[in-house]
Amino acid sequence: MSIPVLDPRSLQAHDSGPPALLPASWLANHLNSRRQEVNAFLEKSLEGGARHSDELRRVMHHAAIGSGGKRLRPLLTILAAEACGGRAEVSLPCACAMEFIHACSLIQDDLPAMDNDRMRRGQPTCHVKFGEGLTILAGDALLSLAFELMATPSTDLPATRQLSVIQLIARSIGLHGMAGGQAADLLAANAAVSMETLRLIHEGKTAAFLQACIVAGSLIAGAAAWQLDALRTFGAEIGLAFQIVDDILNETGHETVTGKAVGSDQALGKATFTAAYGVEGSRRLALEALNRGLEALDPLGPTSAPLQEVGRFIVARNF
Amino acid sequence: MSIPVLDPRSLQAHDSGPPALLPASWLANHLNSRRQEVNAFLEKSLEGGARHSDELRRVMHHAAIGSGGKRLRPLLTILAAEACGGRAEVSLPCACAMEFIHACSLIQDDLPAMDNDRMRRGQPTCHVKFGEGLTILAGDALLSLAFELMATPSTDLPATRQLSVIQLIARSIGLHGMAGGQAADLLAANAAVSMETLRLIHEGKTAAFLQACIVAGSLIAGAAAWQLDALRTFGAEIGLAFQIVDDILNETGHETVTGKAVGSDQALGKATFTAAYGVEGSRRLALEALNRGLEALDPLGPTSAPLQEVGRFIVARNF
Repeated sequence: MSIPVLDPRSLQAHDSGPPALLPASWLANHLNSRRQEVNAFLEKSLEGGARHSDELRRVMHHAAIGSGGKRLRPLLTILAAEACGGRAEVSLPCACAMEFIHACSLIQDDLPAMDNDRMRRGQPTCHVKFGEGLTILAGDALLSLAFELMATPSTDLPATRQLSVIQLIARSIGLHGMAGGQAADLLAANAAVSMETLRLIHEGKTAAFLQACIVAGSLIAGAAAWQLDALRTFGAEIGLAFQIVDDILNETGHETVTGKAVGSDQALGKATFTAAYGVEGSRRLALEALNRGLEALDPLGPTSAPLQEVGRFIVARNF
Repeated sequence: MSIPVLDPRSLQAHDSGPPALLPASWLANHLNSRRQEVNAFLEKSLEGGARHSDELRRVMHHAAIGSGGKRLRPLLTILAAEACGGRAEVSLPCACAMEFIHACSLIQDDLPAMDNDRMRRGQPTCHVKFGEGLTILAGDALLSLAFELMATPSTDLPATRQLSVIQLIARSIGLHGMAGGQAADLLAANAAVSMETLRLIHEGKTAAFLQACIVAGSLIAGAAAWQLDALRTFGAEIGLAFQIVDDILNETGHETVTGKAVGSDQALGKATFTAAYGVEGSRRLALEALNRGLEALDPLGPTSAPLQEVGRFIVARNF
């Protein structure tokens, strides 16, 4: 069976959906095109404003745009919306809000009072470059900008749907999500923790927000209950897989891949999957989670292919 | 003319509005009753959840509730809503969101990387008590909780109105508001700044959010354009007056009143109104701003009396 030759015009953004046979080139082009739209929107969101806030804007720009990143979370939101029949451009502001929230969490994670990392993605971390005060304020401003974007009125989006997204995201990053997980992680450093606690920490720290990015996309698309269920399961499994792979990379990965010092979590005495299950055991757990996630997407058919691809990428980052 | 004797039942919360003659006891009772409703709702908002996040919840509770506070911002939101004919209980979740945001800004302000204050309201500051890491995370969780509350579906509130409030508040605390002002303030320490810059810093740092709390109340009440204009002007003037009085208190106030070391802003080489206009000149400026604010409320009639009272309190804190 030969792979069909695609008309390049069919590879443009906002096309009518994936071709039936989905050659790898279509997928790669689709993801690239979405990533470019995200990057353009992120830039636009940080334009304008008064001169006295120029320096803070520079810090925000460095944190969210200038220091690179795969735009995984905004892609998950957009592709989840598309998997449920939604249009990419309608989900774009909320998708970019996810990247601003993610950037806030990264620059805070690196602070001396948290993980005390001086390098991230091969560059000096935000507080090393701009100081701790401006880094903390940039975090606040990134969070605020994210909520501002999610609340931007849209003719394509019922206001009640936007409120659901805002509630979902706010919960996923607050006391019962990311912040709560981070706090439990801080408190668990150098302490013996049960596997149950390890799971709760990781669910809060990483999985809750990753899953929320995916569920937000399906909410924006006005997904039916069965679609929402599928995306929720996919999100939970991908969130789990993501954290396991992060733990593996932290122990085995090369510094140029992870962008931070190898073994730094171990040095901090942190609770990790590799410490509990070993590297091979952890790899098996990650693959099992991925497979459960992909299976959940089955009923959605070919519109979910790009989302599946990102799922596979998340687990394949290192092996 | 004798002051009418009020039936105590008319002093309950959610009564039908102020009596025509507004004796001081009615005002005091009204403000007290609203403050109690705010305190009860703040407590309720922090209940429940998983055990592994107990410690972070404790930090949030200390920051927002346990360490005291006048509940000025939630009162402003509720009273602004009532001044425009809205019901207090409909504005209560958003009003309490304002207190959580305020608490976040306070615990961050005190951090070593910011003002480096070890005392606040006569107690050790949050990071002194719980450490910097948990303080930063509590700030995030307080912000998230605030947006979650603002996005809570309500049968009494159109979703579009809630989105407007979220947008307004997000802007007022972000790059073009509080965070931007704080950043400019940090950068201006020990530098010569123009009066124009001083105004921009204070507008962002304090006035933008205070004004937004007031405008949010009127949005929630579905205010007409003329009411919104009146509240916007009142908010801008009260915001300005608030910052001027803060500067005066920092220079002349007693540590038990301000809860922080007298002259600490001067010690940091910060740009202040008192440094620019002297204490007497600053007092005159604050009174002028208050009077312009009260004048703007005139067209609203007696429903705005409690709001006027809070305005007067803001300026009368020290003289």
